[in-house]
Amino acid sequence: MTTDPFMTRALELGRGVRRLTAPNPWVGCVIERDGVMVGEGATSPPGGLHAEAAALAAAGERARGATVFTTLEPCAHQGRTGPCTEALIRAGVARVVSAIEDPDPHVAGRGHDALRAASVTVDVGIGGEDATHDLHPYLVHRREGRSFVVIKTATSLDGRVTASDGASRWITGAAARADAHELRADSQAVVVGSGTALADDPVLSVRDTQPPFGPPPLRVLVDGRGRVPATGALFDLALAPTLVVTTGRAPQAARDAWVAAGAAVEMAAAGANGGVDPGELLRVLARLGVLQALVEGGPTLHGAFFEAGLVDRVVAYVAPVVLGAGGLGGYGVDPGPPLAQARRFRLTQAAALGDDVRLEYEVRTNG
Amino acid sequence: MTTDPFMTRALELGRGVRRLTAPNPWVGCVIERDGVMVGEGATSPPGGLHAEAAALAAAGERARGATVFTTLEPCAHQGRTGPCTEALIRAGVARVVSAIEDPDPHVAGRGHDALRAASVTVDVGIGGEDATHDLHPYLVHRREGRSFVVIKTATSLDGRVTASDGASRWITGAAARADAHELRADSQAVVVGSGTALADDPVLSVRDTQPPFGPPPLRVLVDGRGRVPATGALFDLALAPTLVVTTGRAPQAARDAWVAAGAAVEMAAAGANGGVDPGELLRVLARLGVLQALVEGGPTLHGAFFEAGLVDRVVAYVAPVVLGAGGLGGYGVDPGPPLAQARRFRLTQAAALGDDVRLEYEVRTNG
Repeated sequence: MTTDPFMTRALELGRGVRRLTAPNPWVGCVIERDGVMVGEGATSPPGGLHAEAAALAAAGERARGATVFTTLEPCAHQGRTGPCTEALIRAGVARVVSAIEDPDPHVAGRGHDALRAASVTVDVGIGGEDATHDLHPYLVHRREGRSFVVIKTATSLDGRVTASDGASRWITGAAARADAHELRADSQAVVVGSGTALADDPVLSVRDTQPPFGPPPLRVLVDGRGRVPATGALFDLALAPTLVVTTGRAPQAARDAWVAAGAAVEMAAAGANGGVDPGELLRVLARLGVLQALVEGGPTLHGAFFEAGLVDRVVAYVAPVVLGAGGLGGYGVDPGPPLAQARRFRLTQAAALGDDVRLEYEVRTNG
Repeated sequence: MTTDPFMTRALELGRGVRRLTAPNPWVGCVIERDGVMVGEGATSPPGGLHAEAAALAAAGERARGATVFTTLEPCAHQGRTGPCTEALIRAGVARVVSAIEDPDPHVAGRGHDALRAASVTVDVGIGGEDATHDLHPYLVHRREGRSFVVIKTATSLDGRVTASDGASRWITGAAARADAHELRADSQAVVVGSGTALADDPVLSVRDTQPPFGPPPLRVLVDGRGRVPATGALFDLALAPTLVVTTGRAPQAARDAWVAAGAAVEMAAAGANGGVDPGELLRVLARLGVLQALVEGGPTLHGAFFEAGLVDRVVAYVAPVVLGAGGLGGYGVDPGPPLAQARRFRLTQAAALGDDVRLEYEVRTNG
């Protein structure tokens, strides 16, 4: 963790707009002169000011000769807003401190180059570890052209998502379920497979979360074979938008029914098991501006992501109960790798939520 | 938690001899006069002084008119040592504060009665919750005539104790394995089933633990059918003593071989599945002075304890890996209860050990 107070504040500002900026990154910016903060800002929703522009507006004339702390390299290209580098140069800042470079192909060092060419001092790396963590979904999206994948499970201690009688509501308690809604609010898409859609008729909306409130995440049904009828909560478009990702194997009638119900439908290639290929799915979602996709099951879909090596983070809620082998396993990896080849995750959190536990893991190390 | 400083110290003293006193309880005692501690003590190993006697010896004449804080009702019966109540009365203490009553049929209120009959003021309950937790194995042993059961598992996130290739060493990391040795050191018996003995040739000794060092726990092999030959680490009696608990279904030759190897052998009734009945096993162990039995697997033995409702505590080490359905489940409950009937545990700890997690649960609520 960085100890620089200005970068710490910039990181905090960035986190504060986490739910509002997609497909843009949630950036924070602080302007300092003579040891005093003279302006700060964070990325506005798409079409609004970038963090640097907002901080410059707040600082006004005091930005001249100042140092700018920003959690991500300033942009150098004309998008919906003008390039931040130009604004910084025009304001006469002396130095820019960026936590990390922006991997977006439109930036990728060009922001820093433009500043240096205008004789602005540039330092990169202060707060880099924090910014890399905070912006991880954005970084994966821009580097790999796919959405960042968070697998969410809610299982018994023995890894079950149903009991022997098939019941699954509820295995975890109220605090864990409320926390899962916060996870949804942090995501641009909430994804389920056809089995879960058929068994649970899930609503997949965001309920009772803490502010700020961003746009509702896209509800995504992955149904390669067109098994799920265009009825039920997922096709109540008043609740939130719905996208169905399917393959050529789905009957035309199923696709027509989804469209008629108001859902968007995207075609993708089939994967090894005949379902939608996970990599293809993530490219479709990335194209739609989904930085973070929360995959909520079922086990078959989870297994497909694990087996494709396309899991970035796992959030596992574990309930204080043993349900037994007659229940359904929550991870869908079958048969699984030999022990020596099994991928080890990095534990980043173990917290109690009532008698449940919330475990968070980083799975892929890039980003 | 109690906030009384004298009882807090008494509890601390009791915990300090946790590994040394079985089959007696680990009790702490503090003597206070005029707001000052004038003597303290803890239970010695069997045959030595009880906590009250040790504290009285330390206080000497200063015990006259003093208040005695003890974590368990003083004994009133002649055992290997004289009754503590007599020593307290003889020393002229004015008041005894006990955290809890002693459920041992030899005591069970008689200690407090004897003190009151001698005009000593008696208060019960300060620190009662802490003492009930600390002395839980002892309390179950005396109340139910059986050993307290701690189920220990070391699984992947999806509840597996082997991978698809059958490999199990090691699923958890070094810190979790070291912690499990501390659990063994806190127990008077470490118990495994025949499947685990055959598959893993476990040593089941206590290694590299923190002091104090008590006697090594009894290694217990549960083998109702006489499947495990009298070879391997469990029958290296130089490492630690070994007990085999079996049934009449085991061939005489198997029993003779165990005895010839130096192991103790106890017969018990068979349970529903033909193995040793868990309740019978715990009564055998209780008779041998085992207050806490640590059951380390395998899954079949775990399942038998869960299904018999004879699990008091679960310590689950969870490794940061998904091993898949081709591995063996760690809990052996099959098929398991309907969701509405599944017993919910109480989470008492969720702690990181490297990238593993240690989860501790209280399962039964009595004691």
